[in-house]
Amino acid sequence: MTDKGLIVSLSGPSGVGKGTVLAGVREKLPDSGTSVSVTTRKPREGEAEGVSYFFRTKEEFLKLIDEGEILEYDTYVDNYYGTPATPLKKMSSEGVDVLLDLTIAGSLALKEKFEQAVTIFILPPSYEALRTRLVGRGTETEDVIEKRLAEAQSEIVRANEFDYVVVNDDLEDAIHKVLSIIEAEKCRYEHNNGIEKKTSWT
Amino acid sequence: MTDKGLIVSLSGPSGVGKGTVLAGVREKLPDSGTSVSVTTRKPREGEAEGVSYFFRTKEEFLKLIDEGEILEYDTYVDNYYGTPATPLKKMSSEGVDVLLDLTIAGSLALKEKFEQAVTIFILPPSYEALRTRLVGRGTETEDVIEKRLAEAQSEIVRANEFDYVVVNDDLEDAIHKVLSIIEAEKCRYEHNNGIEKKTSWT
Repeated sequence: MTDKGLIVSLSGPSGVGKGTVLAGVREKLPDSGTSVSVTTRKPREGEAEGVSYFFRTKEEFLKLIDEGEILEYDTYVDNYYGTPATPLKKMSSEGVDVLLDLTIAGSLALKEKFEQAVTIFILPPSYEALRTRLVGRGTETEDVIEKRLAEAQSEIVRANEFDYVVVNDDLEDAIHKVLSIIEAEKCRYEHNNGIEKKTSWT
Repeated sequence: MTDKGLIVSLSGPSGVGKGTVLAGVREKLPDSGTSVSVTTRKPREGEAEGVSYFFRTKEEFLKLIDEGEILEYDTYVDNYYGTPATPLKKMSSEGVDVLLDLTIAGSLALKEKFEQAVTIFILPPSYEALRTRLVGRGTETEDVIEKRLAEAQSEIVRANEFDYVVVNDDLEDAIHKVLSIIEAEKCRYEHNNGIEKKTSWT
């Protein structure tokens, strides 16, 4: 019998290297799924419905929130971006592990709706390391970097609301830890919903 | 700063191959510790105090139980065998992971005393696989095998009281799963007692 897939979400402060960790994890788990967000922003050239995003009007989006279909959402430049529940539930029920890249608030909102979701907070090894990375990207001004660091200071205290914390000191080590968390969570008794799913004992 | 060591206990029905799994895990974690049991049995030739066992009289043993020093115990041929708390607490506080091979009741008693203990139930892939292994060992009579299988039937339902279940279908895979559980548990927020232990953030 197929095990249910896990729903795993990674969050962390800007500049922590979460995207790189997630890319490394996906490489090792090529069968894992991801979420296509719902947005109220207009499609850009080459963006396909259900591939890049699910494109909806603001009214439709608000209706989806009311219906409980949006697990978490955020706004950016007057547009809504959210994670829809149905595709996640479908993948999970088909045994596909879903890996999500969410904001810190997003992971916590997801966990509230889906208690079985596994939330991982990616931590920088130090304040200085985070500053060095943000500066090294060379894409932000000094002002923006200071703002990001101040945000990180306030965000990082929320790590205690996550199931796991992984320090991204060494990339390969951080990827290995996330993979171990995924493998361990599959062994959790609760995940297996009784031993009958794990063995042909009965 | 040194992380606290984990206290991990493996249990499973007779014949499931728990000892082999544990040996494989220890090979990958050569710095892990183990528990020396306290027993009321007389030392045999070559057995050293504190190495093979801590040898105590029955009166001393009962006093240790009263003092809460014995985390779990069992009797076998009129002798007591128990796991003492102090060495475990000491190793854990020094950052040493302790791996224990306990009876099913032993793991559950340990968990009651040490909520932070991680309990893993090793499951056979099937009733038939367990019978095959017990027969294959060639060390037990048919009667004893039937008794072991009946015991396994009643023990296996207690898997739901464990944190994790690992099916020992493929040995390497089972060892890998136990190692992943250990690595994941080290990333649990609770284990880290706050992020200050994981980073030099503050």
